[in-house]
Amino acid sequence: MILVHYPVVSKNGDIIASAVTNLDLHDIARAGRTYGICSLYIVTPVRDQLELVDKIVSHWVSGAGAVYNPQRKEALSIIRVSESFEAALSDIAAEDNGYPKTIVTSARKRANSLKMDVLRDTIRMGGSYALVLGTAWGLTEDFLNRADYLLEPICGPTDYNHLSVRSAAAIILDRLLGN
Amino acid sequence: MILVHYPVVSKNGDIIASAVTNLDLHDIARAGRTYGICSLYIVTPVRDQLELVDKIVSHWVSGAGAVYNPQRKEALSIIRVSESFEAALSDIAAEDNGYPKTIVTSARKRANSLKMDVLRDTIRMGGSYALVLGTAWGLTEDFLNRADYLLEPICGPTDYNHLSVRSAAAIILDRLLGN
Repeated sequence: MILVHYPVVSKNGDIIASAVTNLDLHDIARAGRTYGICSLYIVTPVRDQLELVDKIVSHWVSGAGAVYNPQRKEALSIIRVSESFEAALSDIAAEDNGYPKTIVTSARKRANSLKMDVLRDTIRMGGSYALVLGTAWGLTEDFLNRADYLLEPICGPTDYNHLSVRSAAAIILDRLLGN
Repeated sequence: MILVHYPVVSKNGDIIASAVTNLDLHDIARAGRTYGICSLYIVTPVRDQLELVDKIVSHWVSGAGAVYNPQRKEALSIIRVSESFEAALSDIAAEDNGYPKTIVTSARKRANSLKMDVLRDTIRMGGSYALVLGTAWGLTEDFLNRADYLLEPICGPTDYNHLSVRSAAAIILDRLLGN
């Protein structure tokens, strides 16, 4: 999984680098670990933010947090940091001996989006996949257009579709990789 | 839905009142609104904590937050506060003309727990239900035993089952009420 803080869209439609949120790391790492994800990349070009992620992860993986809560250590151990999306993909490619297929997500309906159950079946046939989530108001249009797969948005029985990235990550993992 | 901060279990097994977490309110209200939940009760006997919830909700429902982000207003409008679980049930009973059936959740496997798809079918037949989530290390044994339905834990394809309450809420709503 790749959690992108740049390039993402702001409330006003500008392209921005969003701030890292502590609970994104915990919640998405815990859900990722539950559903058997290999790694969770936190992407931001902001030096201070990368250091913040390192500090949080170190606390739980090798610091006092690791003793306090070993289950949290196990989850946060899957976190990696990367200064760009391309660098994250290169890291995955080096580990998997080839670039992963990229799956992007968006809360907006699009004509060419893939149904969850179709993607679920595709993943089950094997291979390497990177599920990409945008923070703030989501991934940019340009970013979405360059991916291998564009996943359909999560819809409930209402017309409201403003889930947090943490909730969306959990539901998508359950739909794609749940038993 | 009812999010319980007392009585819940601490890391050491003691019965405690846990602290309210701002992002629990946002994430669970947004997921609840997405899946058509009527109300989200925040239960804590701690006066200061009830006031904190009121302050957060007011900011987004009738304060500056309501103008800044109307979608957030729509989600947080479903939040109610209650000083006890019993008081929350009474409020729901007054609104629904009868007490709801209570559904409790736990991360631990139990012999008498109900499968998600069985409960999904039951809910579809109609009636009033309260889905109860525990914070900290979960609802107490005594609390779990008194409910009408005990839901099976969420399991992914691994043996790790330490989801955040926010992720668990999202997945349970999707499984019980998703299209």
